[in-house]
Amino acid sequence: MRACALLGGPKTQWPTDLQAFLAARQAAGDLLIGVDRGSLLLEELNLVPDLAVGDFDSLKKTELAQIEENVPDLRYSIPEKDFTDAELATKYAFVDYQVDALTLYGATGGRLDHFLTNLLMVVKSDFSQYAENIELVDQQNELRFYWPGQHLVNRLPGYTYFGVAPLTAVTGLSITGAKYELNNYTSAVPLSFASNEFLPGQDAFDLSFAKGIVAVIQTKDIDRYQSI
Amino acid sequence: MRACALLGGPKTQWPTDLQAFLAARQAAGDLLIGVDRGSLLLEELNLVPDLAVGDFDSLKKTELAQIEENVPDLRYSIPEKDFTDAELATKYAFVDYQVDALTLYGATGGRLDHFLTNLLMVVKSDFSQYAENIELVDQQNELRFYWPGQHLVNRLPGYTYFGVAPLTAVTGLSITGAKYELNNYTSAVPLSFASNEFLPGQDAFDLSFAKGIVAVIQTKDIDRYQSI
Repeated sequence: MRACALLGGPKTQWPTDLQAFLAARQAAGDLLIGVDRGSLLLEELNLVPDLAVGDFDSLKKTELAQIEENVPDLRYSIPEKDFTDAELATKYAFVDYQVDALTLYGATGGRLDHFLTNLLMVVKSDFSQYAENIELVDQQNELRFYWPGQHLVNRLPGYTYFGVAPLTAVTGLSITGAKYELNNYTSAVPLSFASNEFLPGQDAFDLSFAKGIVAVIQTKDIDRYQSI
Repeated sequence: MRACALLGGPKTQWPTDLQAFLAARQAAGDLLIGVDRGSLLLEELNLVPDLAVGDFDSLKKTELAQIEENVPDLRYSIPEKDFTDAELATKYAFVDYQVDALTLYGATGGRLDHFLTNLLMVVKSDFSQYAENIELVDQQNELRFYWPGQHLVNRLPGYTYFGVAPLTAVTGLSITGAKYELNNYTSAVPLSFASNEFLPGQDAFDLSFAKGIVAVIQTKDIDRYQSI
């Protein structure tokens, strides 16, 4: 089983047709999770989360009452805690629901403190075991995490550009079969190689490294930003 | 002299009244920098950058001709290079123009590979010397970088929340005089503590750490995202 979680990030960053997509995934048996305000956003999309996690501090009484009434598994979090709501939701999904993979929506854009917490969750020792099974998706980015090893990174539909960002110290980082190659690169600090490209006619590139956690971001420009 | 640079990130993330603000800064003697497409965006705001840096690949001939005609200092970059356009602009600003500080606009939102490259620039050995003199500003975040030491972080107008994000390994990290305190925290990997708050009636908190580079993000929610 897969899980889809909606966090409270700005709707402007949502992928197109998120409502229809999530409705179809839930109908197909995926676990649908609302993280704090994300639970309300799901309700507004006429979707009922299977699991809702949060302190719900920012919700009105009537909004919370609706969630309390129709969400089968509602779990309150404590604000001054060791784990964020998104981290708790991730734990519940993988441990209690035994999901194979988790996609986070609403995890990007808006407040940068929130985004960085979501991005760096998989670097924490409690969550690194799930790194390769978590992705962040918004309207112009699909971000996945990799452990050390050799990986064939497949091009996702609609994407040409990608970035490779070690989120920790990294050793032996190589990128082959892409526009800009990298050979056995080592860095003691995180960094981001942006604007790489899949080769014409190629639908994958090779990524390998010996140590660290690396994010690969498939990404595209969005014309509407150019014309505003 | 200070410098303001506009990068090519989405306009939706710009601070309110960016045009008036940049016009006033330039009139007051600040250096105005256009980074690649940011140069055209400045021209569209009826502002002429003092310095423009980029390969300008994504610009139409007529757009580039305009920049070539009226920008006093135009420097072409090579796409397959060691430094990004933003990094080159930073070098030119601090080295050639001897500016004291640099504020980056259009550096957030949109493509996450670009954002992470902008965020992590100051972690690179070529740029870490400028870390405390660079900030990233958008409509709901002001992100500043700190070297090891003791810092009094002053509340910026309009902000209550902040996040503290070590971008590298960190030792001895303490936060005092804030809602959530931290005492002598050590981490081998980057992480982000989100949603901290200035204390009521207090306009600063104390931040100290012994090793690493730490970002402090003053941040706010934006109501229009809730009501879309």
